[in-house]
Amino acid sequence: MITKEKLEGETLKVIEKLHKEKFDELNEMFREKRPYDMSVIFQSLPEKHGISLLHNLDEMTIASMMQKINTMQKLEMLGKIGPEKANKVLALLDSNILTRLLKKYPQVQLTKFLEEMDETNASYVKTMIDYPEDTAGSLMTNRYISIEDHSTVLDAINKTRSLALYLKGNNHLYLIDKKGVLTGTVSYKDLLLSDPHEMLKNIMLEQVICVTVSTKRENIVRLLRRYDFTALPVTNEEGVLVGMITFDCMVEALLQETSDDYGKFSTASKEIDFKTKPIIAAVRRLPWLVILLFIGLISGSIISKFEGTLEKVVALAFFMPLIAGMTGNTGTQSLAVVVRGLAENEIDVKAVFKLILREFWVSLIIGSTCGLLISIIAFIWQGNMYLGIVVGGSLFLTLILGTMAGTIIPIILYKCKLDPAVASGPLITTVNDIFSLITYFSIASLLLS
Amino acid sequence: MITKEKLEGETLKVIEKLHKEKFDELNEMFREKRPYDMSVIFQSLPEKHGISLLHNLDEMTIASMMQKINTMQKLEMLGKIGPEKANKVLALLDSNILTRLLKKYPQVQLTKFLEEMDETNASYVKTMIDYPEDTAGSLMTNRYISIEDHSTVLDAINKTRSLALYLKGNNHLYLIDKKGVLTGTVSYKDLLLSDPHEMLKNIMLEQVICVTVSTKRENIVRLLRRYDFTALPVTNEEGVLVGMITFDCMVEALLQETSDDYGKFSTASKEIDFKTKPIIAAVRRLPWLVILLFIGLISGSIISKFEGTLEKVVALAFFMPLIAGMTGNTGTQSLAVVVRGLAENEIDVKAVFKLILREFWVSLIIGSTCGLLISIIAFIWQGNMYLGIVVGGSLFLTLILGTMAGTIIPIILYKCKLDPAVASGPLITTVNDIFSLITYFSIASLLLS
Repeated sequence: MITKEKLEGETLKVIEKLHKEKFDELNEMFREKRPYDMSVIFQSLPEKHGISLLHNLDEMTIASMMQKINTMQKLEMLGKIGPEKANKVLALLDSNILTRLLKKYPQVQLTKFLEEMDETNASYVKTMIDYPEDTAGSLMTNRYISIEDHSTVLDAINKTRSLALYLKGNNHLYLIDKKGVLTGTVSYKDLLLSDPHEMLKNIMLEQVICVTVSTKRENIVRLLRRYDFTALPVTNEEGVLVGMITFDCMVEALLQETSDDYGKFSTASKEIDFKTKPIIAAVRRLPWLVILLFIGLISGSIISKFEGTLEKVVALAFFMPLIAGMTGNTGTQSLAVVVRGLAENEIDVKAVFKLILREFWVSLIIGSTCGLLISIIAFIWQGNMYLGIVVGGSLFLTLILGTMAGTIIPIILYKCKLDPAVASGPLITTVNDIFSLITYFSIASLLLS
Repeated sequence: MITKEKLEGETLKVIEKLHKEKFDELNEMFREKRPYDMSVIFQSLPEKHGISLLHNLDEMTIASMMQKINTMQKLEMLGKIGPEKANKVLALLDSNILTRLLKKYPQVQLTKFLEEMDETNASYVKTMIDYPEDTAGSLMTNRYISIEDHSTVLDAINKTRSLALYLKGNNHLYLIDKKGVLTGTVSYKDLLLSDPHEMLKNIMLEQVICVTVSTKRENIVRLLRRYDFTALPVTNEEGVLVGMITFDCMVEALLQETSDDYGKFSTASKEIDFKTKPIIAAVRRLPWLVILLFIGLISGSIISKFEGTLEKVVALAFFMPLIAGMTGNTGTQSLAVVVRGLAENEIDVKAVFKLILREFWVSLIIGSTCGLLISIIAFIWQGNMYLGIVVGGSLFLTLILGTMAGTIIPIILYKCKLDPAVASGPLITTVNDIFSLITYFSIASLLLS
């Protein structure tokens, strides 16, 4: 583990070794490190030294470091080391990392690279590239061991030994039948504790949690929440084992699923980090803000329709932010409960009606409490009973509407096979702004005239 | 894996076996299932049958099922099976689950239970209960294997064999010196591929990622993002190995950390799921809404201070929601970038200033673009150039203020060792509402008078 205090020393050590041209020592120093620590040291180097480091590290080390840097930085790195070395590094990458990277490659370069790659790997990568992003097919790796299930423990040990260097940190062997169909799994611990002449069939675990190439990332994450496994075998539609999803790939998928939801909540903060340049960060955020600006004009034009009412009782404006804000908040509360619930459970029609009914009761309780409270406050503050009734009555109605919108919109999205989390933020806020302003001013116009 | 279609059949099978009093078959049926699937079947049973099932399942199966149900439901289950069986089940639970459960126990019952438990386990659990929640000390288990590092591979195999049933799904052995200090780790795969007479010292991995009992959950999650490991050894302050955090416990920690952030964004949706009763859900949500109601009154009273200005130009009200909304949104965008960045990196003073400067430039670009746009729209719509200048100028200023608030507030919270994510939602929205309304109406009063 690298700490901030250590980092400076390590960085200086690298620069020194570069100056003195002690490239073997440099390689040795990096080989002992974990990918994340390598990447931190690399990123703390001044640009000039970074390039020099890349030219002098061997391909295996660069490939290892690449596991822990993002795709944009990977492309940048590959650009710096020149096409020949880049291709050597790429050939050493794990197939799921390589696939993600190659998807960003220009077609010409891609074809050329795949031609140079060894045939088995090239054809594996070609199939992977065709799977849609965020499906098991594009997340899997071919660095697992499978063996026919009529083999013995000793066969398995020998096969593991012959492939040890090539393996990812998986702790299971997968067993297949003659057609390649996944039939079971055996852990190294079980192999260790079994007689070498025991048949694998007799010690294997038959009920394997597995997915097909077209399983979506969100479903993989759901499985990970429910069952404990540290690697997930992937089969094609016929049950033939074609890949494995590693533990760190699953952790990454889990983070991305939760961070996607989070990103949707806060509208488009994705792909902006501490290093993004101001102009790029601004350009990435602006589209959303401009859309929100036009959405804000909708509220404005609703209010303008009630200009007459507002001119008569300017005090109505005082409660506008409160009513719109409360409606938005109650909607977001419902939405959070529903979105999280839908991520964890699959629900049927009966459950949907039960949920909507529950939220309706909740909104009645919340609406009447808050409505009563604000009408008393408004009456005392402005000394106008009618205003109190208008504000309280409106809040009561808008809280019910807001809660229902926050419940029903994500369910509709879910039923249309869309991600319910996209309803978060702007969509729900806009709908509720419009609902609440129309309700508020309609009641006010009616009662105060 | 259990599907919705299968579930009904399985539930009926359980009810049938209960009716026919085929309790052995029932136990056999459950033993083959994974904890999550057991819990789903149990929860789909009518209450009466659920209780009958609990009375007839053996303790080991109940303990296994308990891994996948929440603490409240665990306590309910234990209440249903009576104190004697409950204690037997508890004694079989993994220490991290047991500790979490016992923390909710009344002191008298706790003392009594610990007295009945076997001494080694009882003292382990007693120490764990004293560690603060969300530290490694309260997440760890004692179901790991450690062996002195001067032993041979064969010794390790024999020790594993003798403890195989008791182990959690870990794939490593931990090596310690004579004082119990963690010195390295060996995977079962390495054991399998080594000569039985090889010394463990020669094949062990020395650079182990480990934490101490007082390491916080968020730091464990940070390590998990950076390094690939499937179990994490825990030591005391002297480096003595005292526990291990399992893979599924880490996944749970990761989910809780992200879900905590998520919960803060949407204000208090925690502990409300699809099954929560309306009155309980309403009571849990109301406190927040009432606070937000009073916060809304702050906006109201600011607007009321400018009643005179508003009476003169009612059209000012049309742009109120837009300006407040946009300010809130730009603040939330900055905040999301900062909160996520802080979760992933530790930052120093230099980085803070760089970040604030970056966000300032971003806000200048965003502010001038949106300000110019809205002033043109306002001028065309209302045919009033002054109104255009007021609205555009205000939006320019409030977007800068909003962005800065969204950047600086989470950094201050972070520096005060508070969780920056608490700034999300209400806090940032309120601050930005107040900023934007004061700015807007001050400029309007100045210019339009």
